Amino acid sequence: MTAQKPMPSLWKPKPSWQEVAARARARIDNAIPSSYLAAPEYLPKTPEEYVLDLPERSGVLSARELEITGLNAWELLPKLADKSFSAVEVTEAFCRRASVAHQVTNCLALVMFKSALERAKELDEYLERTGKPIGPLHGLPISIKEHIEVEGTPATAGFIAWVDDVSKNDALVVKILRDAGAIFHVKTANPQALMSIETDSNIYGRTTNPYNRNLSSGGSSGGEGSLLAMRGSALGIGTDMGGSIRVPASFSGIYGLKPAIARNPHGGLAGNYGGMESIVGVVGPLTHCVKDLRLFQEVVLASEPWNIEPSLVRMPWNPEGKDMQLPKKLKIGIIWDDGVVQPHPPITRALKTTVDALKSSGHEIIDWDTSLHDDIQSTVWQMFFLDGGKEVFDVFREGNEGPVKCIEFALRGGPYSTPRHYTVEESWKINSERTKQQTAYASMWNETGVDFIIAPSNPAAATAHDETGWDGYTGVWNGLDHTAVVFPVTSVQQTDTYENFPRLRKEPLGERDLHYIDAYKNGPSKYANAPVALQLITRKHTEEKALKAVELVEGIIGSSR
Amino acid sequence: MTAQKPMPSLWKPKPSWQEVAARARARIDNAIPSSYLAAPEYLPKTPEEYVLDLPERSGVLSARELEITGLNAWELLPKLADKSFSAVEVTEAFCRRASVAHQVTNCLALVMFKSALERAKELDEYLERTGKPIGPLHGLPISIKEHIEVEGTPATAGFIAWVDDVSKNDALVVKILRDAGAIFHVKTANPQALMSIETDSNIYGRTTNPYNRNLSSGGSSGGEGSLLAMRGSALGIGTDMGGSIRVPASFSGIYGLKPAIARNPHGGLAGNYGGMESIVGVVGPLTHCVKDLRLFQEVVLASEPWNIEPSLVRMPWNPEGKDMQLPKKLKIGIIWDDGVVQPHPPITRALKTTVDALKSSGHEIIDWDTSLHDDIQSTVWQMFFLDGGKEVFDVFREGNEGPVKCIEFALRGGPYSTPRHYTVEESWKINSERTKQQTAYASMWNETGVDFIIAPSNPAAATAHDETGWDGYTGVWNGLDHTAVVFPVTSVQQTDTYENFPRLRKEPLGERDLHYIDAYKNGPSKYANAPVALQLITRKHTEEKALKAVELVEGIIGSSR
Repeated sequence: MTAQKPMPSLWKPKPSWQEVAARARARIDNAIPSSYLAAPEYLPKTPEEYVLDLPERSGVLSARELEITGLNAWELLPKLADKSFSAVEVTEAFCRRASVAHQVTNCLALVMFKSALERAKELDEYLERTGKPIGPLHGLPISIKEHIEVEGTPATAGFIAWVDDVSKNDALVVKILRDAGAIFHVKTANPQALMSIETDSNIYGRTTNPYNRNLSSGGSSGGEGSLLAMRGSALGIGTDMGGSIRVPASFSGIYGLKPAIARNPHGGLAGNYGGMESIVGVVGPLTHCVKDLRLFQEVVLASEPWNIEPSLVRMPWNPEGKDMQLPKKLKIGIIWDDGVVQPHPPITRALKTTVDALKSSGHEIIDWDTSLHDDIQSTVWQMFFLDGGKEVFDVFREGNEGPVKCIEFALRGGPYSTPRHYTVEESWKINSERTKQQTAYASMWNETGVDFIIAPSNPAAATAHDETGWDGYTGVWNGLDHTAVVFPVTSVQQTDTYENFPRLRKEPLGERDLHYIDAYKNGPSKYANAPVALQLITRKHTEEKALKAVELVEGIIGSSR
Repeated sequence: MTAQKPMPSLWKPKPSWQEVAARARARIDNAIPSSYLAAPEYLPKTPEEYVLDLPERSGVLSARELEITGLNAWELLPKLADKSFSAVEVTEAFCRRASVAHQVTNCLALVMFKSALERAKELDEYLERTGKPIGPLHGLPISIKEHIEVEGTPATAGFIAWVDDVSKNDALVVKILRDAGAIFHVKTANPQALMSIETDSNIYGRTTNPYNRNLSSGGSSGGEGSLLAMRGSALGIGTDMGGSIRVPASFSGIYGLKPAIARNPHGGLAGNYGGMESIVGVVGPLTHCVKDLRLFQEVVLASEPWNIEPSLVRMPWNPEGKDMQLPKKLKIGIIWDDGVVQPHPPITRALKTTVDALKSSGHEIIDWDTSLHDDIQSTVWQMFFLDGGKEVFDVFREGNEGPVKCIEFALRGGPYSTPRHYTVEESWKINSERTKQQTAYASMWNETGVDFIIAPSNPAAATAHDETGWDGYTGVWNGLDHTAVVFPVTSVQQTDTYENFPRLRKEPLGERDLHYIDAYKNGPSKYANAPVALQLITRKHTEEKALKAVELVEGIIGSSR
């Protein structure tokens, strides 16, 4: 009997995706000091248990730390600059609160407490030495969506295969914020391949909604949503190609801005489809108030990012611009439904109370024509996977993993049919169709003369896990490349029934509508405590105007924070 | 013997391309009154004979008409507004001069004298009735490159198959100019498929340079170049995807602006590759002076075209903008050659005298690094024909025509290898490469801190027919999406020899360089009388700054018109 050939010495079986994921999760858990965590007796026993007040009642944060984390960014900054708070104590407060948030929502993808506290110490010393803050964001803890690159940290975009891909550079937006004095304490979870408006992946698992853990955090910036809802960050950075800033903002009762393409710096994101320009994601802020959205835009654009990233438009932040003004008497388009899925009763109620208040204040309301929306969203889905998803499947294969449920939905073409691998000529036809839709929509703005549109941001206040069937309320504005802001208006009430808020169109609009009717068949209790948001839309590159409009509407409906 | 089956009654053989072309040319000739044409005895007997003064010496124009056509647009407009000139007499003067220009350069593609004179009459009546001009361009005759759509006229893009494609609408730029009071008297020739920086097609034949008819008009806006050189139009509109405004402006001794993509309205152009967005052509003016370039930009952007064509940037014309300013002491990058082809002696002389004058005025000059240019231009050529030219060949087949020589050059991949049909994924890789090149170039601007770059616009003052072998001096700025202006500096002199203006690099740079060395082997006489232009380049979307810079340079070198 001859001796067996030895195995090739370099051959080693790939670890299973479960092993890789366990390692990635361990690097989060190991970086959180146990003193930052709520003791087991404070943790919820069931998903129904209310957790939003856990930071207060768990004793992990001091009264002063609770005060600090309760402030908005624009309130914190002057107190950091005048040394009322040190950067170290502010950072530690947010690190503690982020840790507690992660315990109950699984919102973090990476913990950077050590480097954050070191940087905070440096900033404190700088301020002490020079008497001046280092920049407009001196000492502000900012959370970063996982796939946005931060030098020296992994950016996986939710792929097992990329778990050890450590970024060599900061994304441009990170560099700008860092130079302005921001501190980065955490990266936040995003779904596998980033292609869902929920947040789940084989690496990080599912992120839950702190208002009701049976509900989704939204996605793909879902970690940001849940973290900010629990005030574990003063300001968060997300990305949005079909609703990925706005859906989590909406589900989490916070604020989110999706600027039009090429306004904000976009360089330095991990993900698929580099060089695909038919539809492009954007970087934007998730915050506790409108003022903080503006703060982010001011700081980022003051750095003149167009001189570094040439695809950007040369548009300084300019609220004085002609196109950024609002008249005394507004004309507002309202989207009650998009002709595909009628929103649930809490959303209809939010629209109704908003419209009533706007009318009482003398503004003109018109029902907005959404007859193009299904076609627009169909084009958006064609653009998402022009290669039929091949690039995503390749990375799955590399990581020896399969899709989680919400990504399987996307790879099957989402609310439309099976995706196809298009030729380059077909991709041009799709671009032309998108441009035609954008032009038709521009005519509607010109003909109606509305100042802005108010619309739902999702059919549900917050969907249950894996419940998403329709992303058209956010996706169309990516296809049209409009500016859109999500702002919280109310929360789900037990009186939000179809009886009290009947469907405007009695007949179901089709399968996708039936899916959401079915989801609400037992009434509002399934969505208990969920925040209810609305979306305000303006034309391309009118971010200044959109923020003014949200403030104005909030003033009228009395929901300002 | 049975009777033969009759031919299908609807069957008719396609006319030959020669028949179609003859019909298209006849519709030009038949629309020109014989009184607008120079008598045969005034026409040149040889291509060498000087024709630029034909309008003066042929007696077709009155002294007053010569005076009118000698004025720049900004000089004409106040005289039209105060009734010093009627719109009818101004229009007729330019119709006469355009007719004479066409006799010797073959620059026209369509004659619209009748509708132009009717419109002029209406404008005169309007002014008489209201006491006010109808708009800022009241009564100004403007020529339009053939493929730019004008309602009710054909737009062929130089294709036999499209000879009878009558446009249903005005292109957006045409509509804006029309609303501002402009009069359209002619459409001007462009080459087959628009894909050359010379102008030749089976339909219209070759357009020649009025300074020397052995030389090319340049292209693809070559009809505009020759027409404006002979002052047959007060202002012309062209398009540019690789040099198509700048090369004819350069060869014809006029001014041309290629704005960055998405600044000027672009909707309503006949041509191939709709929806292809890797590289996009732009609409821009060809004029008699810088002031008229600015006039065009002011009028067009005042119409807020971004509200109609959503792909445009929301950037009003704003010379006060921070990015549009020039410092007292300039820092200027000079491109002596691009590392691929060294320009001919007249261009080197123009660069030298310009640099000397700028230095004497105290400005700082640095030699600009062009090591990226060959790669950039290679990417540009990949983007031109991502389908390997299939779409163009299909239209050839439809029209039963073959390519003319300069288009054959393009379809063979121009200065690079045989083109390929790329997949959609490969097209994304090419986009990424382009973005990488743009980003690297942005770093060069940031690191050097130059205010602008001065460069050749072509290796030759004006190439002989079918001589073009290199378009990199203009194409790279399309690939980089920079703003570029061409302005006339001097003209070819008999002393422009390699002996007097030796090559900066003794060794030929390669085949493409050898081609141009060979073209100049008999010295400057081949290019006698040709204008010599330079190109001034600024960063993306800084058209205001570029025009200021050209005026400043012209003031210093004393070439202002």
